[in-house]
Amino acid sequence: MKNISFLNVDFDGGFWKDRCDLNAKVSLKSVYKRFEETDRFNGLRFEKKDIKRDIFYDSDAAKWMEAVAYLIEKNGGYEEEQKIIDGIVDGMERGRLKNGYINSYFIAVEPQNAFTRRTDHELYCAGHLIEAAIAYKRATGKEKFFNLMLDYVNCIERAFITEKTARFSTGGHEEIELALVKLYEDTGNKKYLDMAMFFLNERGVREEENYDFSNSKYNQSNAPVRELKEAEGHAVRATYLYTGMSDAAYHTKDAALLAACETLFDDIVNKKMYVTGGIGSNRVGEAFTVAYDLPNLEAYSESCAAIGLLLFALSMQKHGLNAKYADVIERVMYNNLLSSTSIDGREFFYENPLEIHLGSVDKQTSLNPQFRTPLPIAHRLEVFACSCCPPNINRIFARIGDVFFSETEDALVVNQFAAVSLENERISLKMQADFTKDGKVKLSAKNNRYKKIYVRKPSWCARCDARGRAEGDYLVYENLSSVFEEEIDFHLGAYFVRSNPRVRDDGGRVALCYGPTVYCLERIDNPWDLNSLSVDLSAAPAKRALADEGHFFALETKGRRDKDFSGLYRPCGDREEEVTLLFRPYWTFANREKCDMLVWVRRA
Amino acid sequence: MKNISFLNVDFDGGFWKDRCDLNAKVSLKSVYKRFEETDRFNGLRFEKKDIKRDIFYDSDAAKWMEAVAYLIEKNGGYEEEQKIIDGIVDGMERGRLKNGYINSYFIAVEPQNAFTRRTDHELYCAGHLIEAAIAYKRATGKEKFFNLMLDYVNCIERAFITEKTARFSTGGHEEIELALVKLYEDTGNKKYLDMAMFFLNERGVREEENYDFSNSKYNQSNAPVRELKEAEGHAVRATYLYTGMSDAAYHTKDAALLAACETLFDDIVNKKMYVTGGIGSNRVGEAFTVAYDLPNLEAYSESCAAIGLLLFALSMQKHGLNAKYADVIERVMYNNLLSSTSIDGREFFYENPLEIHLGSVDKQTSLNPQFRTPLPIAHRLEVFACSCCPPNINRIFARIGDVFFSETEDALVVNQFAAVSLENERISLKMQADFTKDGKVKLSAKNNRYKKIYVRKPSWCARCDARGRAEGDYLVYENLSSVFEEEIDFHLGAYFVRSNPRVRDDGGRVALCYGPTVYCLERIDNPWDLNSLSVDLSAAPAKRALADEGHFFALETKGRRDKDFSGLYRPCGDREEEVTLLFRPYWTFANREKCDMLVWVRRA
Repeated sequence: MKNISFLNVDFDGGFWKDRCDLNAKVSLKSVYKRFEETDRFNGLRFEKKDIKRDIFYDSDAAKWMEAVAYLIEKNGGYEEEQKIIDGIVDGMERGRLKNGYINSYFIAVEPQNAFTRRTDHELYCAGHLIEAAIAYKRATGKEKFFNLMLDYVNCIERAFITEKTARFSTGGHEEIELALVKLYEDTGNKKYLDMAMFFLNERGVREEENYDFSNSKYNQSNAPVRELKEAEGHAVRATYLYTGMSDAAYHTKDAALLAACETLFDDIVNKKMYVTGGIGSNRVGEAFTVAYDLPNLEAYSESCAAIGLLLFALSMQKHGLNAKYADVIERVMYNNLLSSTSIDGREFFYENPLEIHLGSVDKQTSLNPQFRTPLPIAHRLEVFACSCCPPNINRIFARIGDVFFSETEDALVVNQFAAVSLENERISLKMQADFTKDGKVKLSAKNNRYKKIYVRKPSWCARCDARGRAEGDYLVYENLSSVFEEEIDFHLGAYFVRSNPRVRDDGGRVALCYGPTVYCLERIDNPWDLNSLSVDLSAAPAKRALADEGHFFALETKGRRDKDFSGLYRPCGDREEEVTLLFRPYWTFANREKCDMLVWVRRA
Repeated sequence: MKNISFLNVDFDGGFWKDRCDLNAKVSLKSVYKRFEETDRFNGLRFEKKDIKRDIFYDSDAAKWMEAVAYLIEKNGGYEEEQKIIDGIVDGMERGRLKNGYINSYFIAVEPQNAFTRRTDHELYCAGHLIEAAIAYKRATGKEKFFNLMLDYVNCIERAFITEKTARFSTGGHEEIELALVKLYEDTGNKKYLDMAMFFLNERGVREEENYDFSNSKYNQSNAPVRELKEAEGHAVRATYLYTGMSDAAYHTKDAALLAACETLFDDIVNKKMYVTGGIGSNRVGEAFTVAYDLPNLEAYSESCAAIGLLLFALSMQKHGLNAKYADVIERVMYNNLLSSTSIDGREFFYENPLEIHLGSVDKQTSLNPQFRTPLPIAHRLEVFACSCCPPNINRIFARIGDVFFSETEDALVVNQFAAVSLENERISLKMQADFTKDGKVKLSAKNNRYKKIYVRKPSWCARCDARGRAEGDYLVYENLSSVFEEEIDFHLGAYFVRSNPRVRDDGGRVALCYGPTVYCLERIDNPWDLNSLSVDLSAAPAKRALADEGHFFALETKGRRDKDFSGLYRPCGDREEEVTLLFRPYWTFANREKCDMLVWVRRA
């Protein structure tokens, strides 16, 4: 089984094409502009002195370059961006140390401390630069960036493996593991796969430097990787590690490593994932906490963590036919990934809370506005101090075509649904679908050489009209000829979901969904305290146009509102007032003025 | 109008007598033992070196001595405790500075810094010592402690008023204001009332030293006292200040000062008070936050703050006939005050949360057990580092008789209800009542010289059988003769209350109450996730005996439980299971093994 690359997949209009075009045309430029203004590229140019530097700036620059590379590889062009990247690469060549070491912060600020502090992101930055270099070589054929990184990888190999001059043995922020597997996939040189396995196998086998606010769980160093049973610690670090583990297991056939990945994936999606596909409940450490702890107001649910979960699921999808991975990818795509960016593509969320209650922001600042970060943030920003998310969003939208199809020796698997064409040596397939509108999927193939086609039946689908044979979570089409035509109706519609009763914060509450899209209330549309409202499960939500409609619409339905009174407490008794509630897609929240928002609404 | 002293009120058995006896016989000794072990008395003895010292230890010792003094004044005896106090007083005489200054921390550790740091509790400790000294003189006739404090007050007057050598002008923790009014009441010397007014009038009129984690709202220095409109900042500091303001206004007839007190009281009880009478929602600063911010799990709701609110209400009650003050006192008494102490009287709560969810404790410690204080505490302790509450509980139970009656020139007001006798020169009254059992109140008076008797009708009373004329929140009995007999039935029973819909955390939830007593669920009795339960408002809760029953009983009623499933999310649809819920009085929570607890339960 392997995933089919975005290079073979073209969008034919529709919602996802629009969002991807917006990423390429607006978001990418928005990030570039703010990154220039904040010296994120200047570090690697090694020209100016007295610029802002941080230990993670190289990774920000790398993710943006990787995004550009995917867009070039897919579409060509982007000459201006190529010049920018070539300039940065020249700078890296100029600035790197003789031994191949490249890290703009350490070279400029404290070269004597290279590879001495585990917590300082060097291997993380290296990993992102490796990913960018591979993508840029493939996209442009230019090899300088790639060769610089090969030298750096050799430098890393000496420092950590052969000469062991580094003062730590595995990175405090994972990323290099999955990057080294990619380098192996690109070069076929097993040395890089061995290096990836080295960093995986050395992890969690000894005491190493930790972050002062946490223990070794924070960066998944609390046990050897094959013995990890629960998703713990920093959610981005965790999912990057798990992706690296899965990618490595794919090539090494390491069954214990894969088994650990399966356990960790199930632990996330069965106990630690928001209904929006967000992960990481704990603002302290941006981390997983314990099973079923999913606070909505304090949700961290970082954009990068949702992307990490998507990457992990995408990697797991390669190991065999199992719809649960694509289900999670769909959940992330239609909710936390989309919500990370403003409707106009210019601004981004770091956190993606499931509730905004401005009163709780006032509460936090009631003693001293300087004392604490207002929680949660109620609007997106162009850039932030720790700006890992915006370029991560850029690069994931640039390759989102990766999620749609996978294949085995004789079968094609349709994992996701949109208006796309698949062109490879085995099929010319046109899919018409738009789950933001309805549940109809039309597949038209010619030149087909697959024997079977599997079409995933989404987990939200309660009723399905199709000719295919149901097999588990798939519709299966067999004994195919060169031409294939099928129309499926998954009957997209509104429905309410509830949480496992162990989730304290969702007790007595429901989330309104429309197919894969989670909906929410915003106070602008529902001018009352949102927690004084309840929704009537017996009423049928109706579609309503929104003023800012693009591909999305509101759902209107019946609810009730607790009657107001002065003072604090009174005996129960008075009737609730009937109200009409207007829900909008979760991902479109916080695109107007700052206001309260709520996903999990009380059931009446 | 004035409140009738506890000296005139005797308990005739029943619930409150038992709790007060427990305070005198068990809690007082428990606090004494732990305070000796932690050097809280040793500081003022000025004998040993190398002992633990803290800037607030003198106030801990003072409150315990004050409690003992009330018990002696009421009952005589306590020879052993008198010896202890006399020994401490001898130590104070030995250790004090020549100018009369007494503070065990500053004298021992940094005498050069006396009265230089506003945030270091000197005037707060002085206030508590003054209260203790007055009570001890009245109780025993011994004047040494009292005279030491008069000298110290003169020292304070010089430092702050006449010579202004102190480096700040008002204390960072209020308390001296109300203590100086008490000293005026005891001596009749207007100088002390003037000093109290000085500290009130100087407050909030200039920039002064603040706590590093907060601004001037924290200690109510953000505006002149007559201009304070909202209860803000540290809840104990706030209520001590407001009590001092009310006490001072009582004597000075300062209408603007009293008006500010009324505004502040209403702000607390209409917007910032838990249903248990607890105040202070913010663990950061142990402080008030904003209106309607009453989180249950994170409630601070400090025992001292509830006592502060009780003292403030008791002071306000003197200004005129208004049942709302006694209503709040009742709410505090039957809930947050009682919950502060374990059933056996040996252990105490600092915080009194309205929910315990052990999963949230795990959550906090998931990254690093050392990193944060587990929240909330799920069991009481004998003593804690900042142990202001236990001796405060001692002294308030010792004088709880103060809350029952007040009087005007011609009328007696019955504010609270229990089995007590009132003996003064105007009446011999016997009251039979026990609101932990039923709503019947029997009043039998002889030798009556009051023209009127007002009996407060509790705010929870929906139906009342009585001969008295209803006048606002009172039953009035007029044209009384020497003998007075009345039987009232307030029809105590179970009922559900809801919160103002602006209270985010109580949305869709109800609290079960029985008269003034708030009930709660504990997981030991209801072996499910408490937030997966809902209570059926149409069912009638029935009394059930508890294994550990003293004066309290459980309420059993019908509820529902969300059906369990594996995984996190599923479409709504399956029926809930019917369950029987067992509620117990809130104040008895956390007296068995550690377990989840919940006051605000979802309504079915």
